[in-house]
Amino acid sequence: MHTDLLNDLINSLTILPGIGKKSAQRMALYLLDKNRDGADILAVTLKNAIKEIKRCESCRMLTSNDLCKICSDSNRENNKICVVENPSDVLAIESTGGYRGIYFVLLGRLSPIDGVGPDELGIHDLLKILTSKKIDEVILATSSTVEGDATAIFIKDHITNIKVSRISYGIPIGGELEYVDGNTIARAIQGRVEVNVD
Amino acid sequence: MHTDLLNDLINSLTILPGIGKKSAQRMALYLLDKNRDGADILAVTLKNAIKEIKRCESCRMLTSNDLCKICSDSNRENNKICVVENPSDVLAIESTGGYRGIYFVLLGRLSPIDGVGPDELGIHDLLKILTSKKIDEVILATSSTVEGDATAIFIKDHITNIKVSRISYGIPIGGELEYVDGNTIARAIQGRVEVNVD
Repeated sequence: MHTDLLNDLINSLTILPGIGKKSAQRMALYLLDKNRDGADILAVTLKNAIKEIKRCESCRMLTSNDLCKICSDSNRENNKICVVENPSDVLAIESTGGYRGIYFVLLGRLSPIDGVGPDELGIHDLLKILTSKKIDEVILATSSTVEGDATAIFIKDHITNIKVSRISYGIPIGGELEYVDGNTIARAIQGRVEVNVD
Repeated sequence: MHTDLLNDLINSLTILPGIGKKSAQRMALYLLDKNRDGADILAVTLKNAIKEIKRCESCRMLTSNDLCKICSDSNRENNKICVVENPSDVLAIESTGGYRGIYFVLLGRLSPIDGVGPDELGIHDLLKILTSKKIDEVILATSSTVEGDATAIFIKDHITNIKVSRISYGIPIGGELEYVDGNTIARAIQGRVEVNVD
């Protein structure tokens, strides 16, 4: 039989999220025609990443070591922990450079209908970290969805004697009220903060 | 040093055309979190494709064999050859299912400023095929750009005693005149075809 490796390559590129047949074809032809070195690096890195990358033993972030870069960094503020749903949330917060504490990645949010309970989210591990690391503040940064809010409330209910905060939700910076959706405006009014004139 | 394989993977995904940092991050997290099997297949296929895929010895299409699927298919009409610029053009024409002849891929178009001349486009190989394969018709399907047209004229000038045609350019099917650009309309009028009432 005539093997059709080009077709195989196009098909395997379509597993990438957001990539359809046309884009996959464009990618395959580009890699083969213009950038075989880059394709080789990609293949090797992908192979290594699948083999080596696992969960950080402390915060459950993706890492190729036992502890991730953040957990093993002694310069981080080890008394503040930010609880997020996904690894991408860690990358988003890290890209701002404004947070110096550590993280805990739930890898989901409470959703009984999908069989996701406190055990799946590692909430017991989180509670253990709170005592072992002498945490002063837990910052809940779960999403502002029904499940995200429920997850935040559930975690708050299980924490005693430690300050628990939730990141603020409201009008995005630079956002104009008339273009912001109603739910966000309602949340912004509900979460209004007193203005202090100094 | 703390190796950051996740970051390496994100960076190597940005070599894909049209993929920026954000999309690459989304792809990397998706592959690691949700589809390690798919990622493994992609890595292996990519590795094989770079190693195995070369040019068809006859038509210069990408293939992992000496002759591509089309050139080695005895059911194709071997007396008609369609000259295209890129492998993607072959895939585009093949996807219509309406053409049963063979192809010749120039891998570019005449562009003296970029150092692309007849030798780079394998035009001598094409002329050899015309005699060795007893071709009856050469269909020029180079692009409708200045260089594409120049390439078509150059090839036509070097062919004698064989019918040479050019694919038609004009208003796309379903296109409305008012939304079609001026160059296309001018070309459509210039390339008008007499209507025969039967």
